[in-house]
Amino acid sequence: MARIAVIPGDGIGREVVPEGIRVLEAAASLHGVPLEFEWFDFASADYWTRHGTMLPDDWFDLLRPYDAIFFGAVGWPEVVPDHVSLWGSLLQFRRGFDQYVNLRPCRLLPGVPSPLAGRQAGDIDFIVVRENTEGEYSSIGGRMFEGTERELVVQQTVMTRVGVDRVQAYALDLAARRPARHLTSATKSNGISISMPYWDERMRQAAERRPEVRVDQFHIDALTAHLVLDPGKFDVIVASNLFGDILSDLGPALTGTLGVAPSANINPERTFPSLFEPVHGSAPDIAGRGIANPIGQIWCGALMLEHLGQPRAAAAIVAAVESVLTAGTQLTPDLGGAARTEDLGRAIASEVARV
Amino acid sequence: MARIAVIPGDGIGREVVPEGIRVLEAAASLHGVPLEFEWFDFASADYWTRHGTMLPDDWFDLLRPYDAIFFGAVGWPEVVPDHVSLWGSLLQFRRGFDQYVNLRPCRLLPGVPSPLAGRQAGDIDFIVVRENTEGEYSSIGGRMFEGTERELVVQQTVMTRVGVDRVQAYALDLAARRPARHLTSATKSNGISISMPYWDERMRQAAERRPEVRVDQFHIDALTAHLVLDPGKFDVIVASNLFGDILSDLGPALTGTLGVAPSANINPERTFPSLFEPVHGSAPDIAGRGIANPIGQIWCGALMLEHLGQPRAAAAIVAAVESVLTAGTQLTPDLGGAARTEDLGRAIASEVARV
Ligand SMILES: CC(C)[C@H](C(=O)O)[C@@H](O)C(=O)O
Ligand SMILES: CC(C)[C@H](C(=O)O)[C@@H](O)C(=O)O
Repeated sequence: MARIAVIPGDGIGREVVPEGIRVLEAAASLHGVPLEFEWFDFASADYWTRHGTMLPDDWFDLLRPYDAIFFGAVGWPEVVPDHVSLWGSLLQFRRGFDQYVNLRPCRLLPGVPSPLAGRQAGDIDFIVVRENTEGEYSSIGGRMFEGTERELVVQQTVMTRVGVDRVQAYALDLAARRPARHLTSATKSNGISISMPYWDERMRQAAERRPEVRVDQFHIDALTAHLVLDPGKFDVIVASNLFGDILSDLGPALTGTLGVAPSANINPERTFPSLFEPVHGSAPDIAGRGIANPIGQIWCGALMLEHLGQPRAAAAIVAAVESVLTAGTQLTPDLGGAARTEDLGRAIASEVARV
Repeated sequence: MARIAVIPGDGIGREVVPEGIRVLEAAASLHGVPLEFEWFDFASADYWTRHGTMLPDDWFDLLRPYDAIFFGAVGWPEVVPDHVSLWGSLLQFRRGFDQYVNLRPCRLLPGVPSPLAGRQAGDIDFIVVRENTEGEYSSIGGRMFEGTERELVVQQTVMTRVGVDRVQAYALDLAARRPARHLTSATKSNGISISMPYWDERMRQAAERRPEVRVDQFHIDALTAHLVLDPGKFDVIVASNLFGDILSDLGPALTGTLGVAPSANINPERTFPSLFEPVHGSAPDIAGRGIANPIGQIWCGALMLEHLGQPRAAAAIVAAVESVLTAGTQLTPDLGGAARTEDLGRAIASEVARV
């Protein structure tokens, strides 16, 4: 029995999470995977309004026993500033549960038009491995000479050998298991002159362990350009926290919509629960209208099943998504259709039984 | 008489700078603009090999009297690591001459196919205003517990009120002069929790001065996605040093090639010379073959003439570039043609006289 903590969060998170669960339940029952879901209302603006914090004090002990966390999206800037809500919830989970690998597959799916000219399903298929606990997302720094002309802020980027080595090793091992055996390291060592040369130095060292993987590196500025001009040449990309964040929004945009992109925040040692969330946010602009694309959330279910050791149930979900997209009759507005969130979710759930 | 310091630098810098000068001379003589060029060999790997430094000790006094610096590209990693060559030259100029505005127009030109489906010349036309002296490009930080498992590096991002305010004000004023009157601020205040909220706070404050400009903000991850999905909705984008760097490679990629993108490193007060350089680098992979696209360098000449108060001569260069691209008979390989760097340069120079 795998126990799943469900945290829908804010905005469209609440609309897509039920569809993710619907599809998970379909796949689980078909493949005999026993799943148990428990819902939590924290990590949301509502919770903030009632309690003045994003999480209960005992969130760590509360969530720790679960096998995984199925997460929607958090953020409702009208009620609580984004940096407060995010640092008070999602970023706590990533760091507290040492989910140091953030996996973000970017794949051009059938039936989803790419904004790039002449690209077909299959032409874009890479995965971003993002460092998820340190780097540019530090909470160290502050402000000085406040309110005067001399005012300044300082914020630290912190990279540790442990932190850099483990994510690079993970990416290298992942690349070694894929047919292309190609790993690209995102850097900016020509401009960011202390932290990024260190990242490069550790990457060179790590690469020696796996001569069978072709390792190259691109500066982040050039990398965004190459991704637009020739996305097919990338396989696995390993990146710092900030660069991984950028690449994993750009990548899904190249595959047509952020609405379909999933992400897995993984603690590879399984000491703590891993967390599965779509790349998109809570999207206040379309929340409450029932038109959000649930595929990112549904695809998260597949990543979660894989993590739980259920590759067949996971594959069934991905196949069902592809087949519903190919059919093209139940698409949400972002995909050019008129279906509602629930229609697309139901279509995929019933397809799971057939593929 | 405007005095121009010419620094070709490394690699294709040496091949495109002569074409830039060729076109500048054509435009200058036609419009009666007296220009005087003086060439310098520093800021190059050759100079490094001979002197062990990238610049002579007196570079500041040497270059300061010039009205502008016409710069190629620097970097030759086989001889000197990029962070050494860049911090030893280009980044010195930007900081030493307080060129705090880096202007990078991104325009889809006629005859240059965009990688984006269905975009025509004119559909993409925005300008990135990049902060150019502080932010993520700091030289403060270091390494600790070197060589042990506990090793870590720390690097500071530093944003000052002076630094943030002046570049945001410049961008706001620029937006006010353009028909769309639209300014987008690139941020990441949901994740980078100290420096970027400060950037946003100052932007809100600055915006009050110009209610006629519509100011919005996007997190850098989402912004790269929006630029790919709907580039036409952007006009002026103001960004920190790192984010501006990324956006001004992504933007030119959307317009088909980095080879045509210019950039101006401006000291608006004219206390110090401004520097004009293409966005592309020294491109060791194609250097020495005479096939580099000189348009980025040539367009820099137009930006420089504008800065020198010669808008008609500047416009003549841009018009000549557009007309040669439209004709399409003298294109370099990156544009799908077979012309050599010099052919394209000569074609634009003779067109200058006719437009
Ligand atoms: C070469 C590098 C240091 C430089 C930068 O990052 O500023 C370049 O990418 C640029 O955009 O001018
Ligand atoms: C919401 C934000 C803090 C978060 C991040 O930057 O990590 C998001 O963009 C993501 O990619 O998961």
